[in-house]
Amino acid sequence: MLEQVKSYLMSLQDSICRDIEKADGVAKFEEDAWTREQGGGGRTRVITHGGVFEKGGVNFSHVHGSSMPSSATSARPELAGRSFEAMGVSLVMHPNNPYVPTSHANVRFFIAEKEGEEPIWWFGGGYDLTPYYGFREDCQHWHEIAAKACAPFGDKVYSEYKKWCDDYFFLKHRNEARGIGGLFFDDLNKWGFEKSFSFMRSVGDSFLGAYCPIVEKRRHIEFGSREREFQLYRRGRYVEFNLVFDRGTLFGLQSGGRTESILMSMPPLVSWEYNRQFEPNSREDELVQKYLPKQDWI
Amino acid sequence: MLEQVKSYLMSLQDSICRDIEKADGVAKFEEDAWTREQGGGGRTRVITHGGVFEKGGVNFSHVHGSSMPSSATSARPELAGRSFEAMGVSLVMHPNNPYVPTSHANVRFFIAEKEGEEPIWWFGGGYDLTPYYGFREDCQHWHEIAAKACAPFGDKVYSEYKKWCDDYFFLKHRNEARGIGGLFFDDLNKWGFEKSFSFMRSVGDSFLGAYCPIVEKRRHIEFGSREREFQLYRRGRYVEFNLVFDRGTLFGLQSGGRTESILMSMPPLVSWEYNRQFEPNSREDELVQKYLPKQDWI
Repeated sequence: MLEQVKSYLMSLQDSICRDIEKADGVAKFEEDAWTREQGGGGRTRVITHGGVFEKGGVNFSHVHGSSMPSSATSARPELAGRSFEAMGVSLVMHPNNPYVPTSHANVRFFIAEKEGEEPIWWFGGGYDLTPYYGFREDCQHWHEIAAKACAPFGDKVYSEYKKWCDDYFFLKHRNEARGIGGLFFDDLNKWGFEKSFSFMRSVGDSFLGAYCPIVEKRRHIEFGSREREFQLYRRGRYVEFNLVFDRGTLFGLQSGGRTESILMSMPPLVSWEYNRQFEPNSREDELVQKYLPKQDWI
Repeated sequence: MLEQVKSYLMSLQDSICRDIEKADGVAKFEEDAWTREQGGGGRTRVITHGGVFEKGGVNFSHVHGSSMPSSATSARPELAGRSFEAMGVSLVMHPNNPYVPTSHANVRFFIAEKEGEEPIWWFGGGYDLTPYYGFREDCQHWHEIAAKACAPFGDKVYSEYKKWCDDYFFLKHRNEARGIGGLFFDDLNKWGFEKSFSFMRSVGDSFLGAYCPIVEKRRHIEFGSREREFQLYRRGRYVEFNLVFDRGTLFGLQSGGRTESILMSMPPLVSWEYNRQFEPNSREDELVQKYLPKQDWI
């Protein structure tokens, strides 16, 4: 199982990096291969100062440990005390142009083992989009691709994982969604290994088709300091979510993961302004009023 | 008890704001008075775009709730299920000039009540300094004032609370201190109300004398983009600490506090750069090698 999944994940990282470089047109990914004292390692790839991307990272990692960290066991006490192997590809792309949305994607596979007991394994993953300026057709396109990736696996798969995504990427202290959602799934093993793995591949393989057309469409829109300031301000929400709520980030930091690889998801430049208000019905206000509230996009 | 403490805290906020404005010379604090649906309220005061301070906030708040949030009860299970009142002054100052350190101070008072049982009350607080460029004499001055504030309360008070501060303001995932420390105390009631309250006042009243002379000494040092970039990069550590570890921030967000007041501690502009390295023995490298490691400053 592990070798099959690992080989898929490494080739997914390769194909995503290749197409992101193509879309960027200027910068290339730089790779850091690293190993971890406690076991495992990864390939961190970062692109910066690009034609489209101010900063982005596409990580592959495969780590093991002697006990699951608390971020992973609080909801599943049966995992406590088990050793684990975790592998995944995780990416975050932060574009220069505020009209191009930030995107995040992740696919992962876990096995938790204990002597004398059956291993517990599961898949997780998904992708979500964080626009600064909303375009209805982009949100529709994003969700259509997500729905298409789910369709072969059952009628209700998209709506279930779309809802999970809305619920997960939510900043409680702001009462605000991080973005316009997408897919989120976790603890997936109910379909057995073959079908679950195939679903994870379907999600992973559909990411570029969901994101790149949006990048292409918006990358040449002109912008000035107003849009740039709004982008830096909204990136603060991204940081708040990742550091306060995101299980993947907390799992990584708690399990002694490689901090620089985990926090490569942080935006390159971010601002916080006290009690910032936006003019009603402005394009900035519209994001919060019309795009972030939970809704059916297709 | 509550009225005495409240009146002190409000006058402390006033005197700190007055002296910070004097030190700044350009900007004035703007006040937002707010109330909270669940009970209580506060006065948030923010200064921005000043002669010295890029952004700073000095909050007074007094909130009550029907049950202590988990961030406050995980270490003290006897508090679970009690109603509470919490009041405090909390401040963070982010200067423009990277040679002027960021400072944080907080003093607070809690009462947790339950029908038919004695109320449990305690004081907490302290202050700590986060320089970008180290100056040994500034660190010594800061700690000397802290030690002087503690001296009337016992021989070992400074060293105990200095150590607590070092332990508390520590980024585990970076294996790095947030700054050069100061004082941190919590759960303080062992001295009885009068002496404990008097200690909190001694800490609160000594803050300006600890910080303002350092501001005065460093505010006119010339700096360029190298220092500015380093400052923005280091501010990322501040954000990481506050959102991942800081109990006050988590308590505020979990207890339904006013998000804008809690997150006024966020720096105005912050950068994250993947795996940034600094030249050995540079002024930037010196911060991490010589100033951040735990040490006796006096």
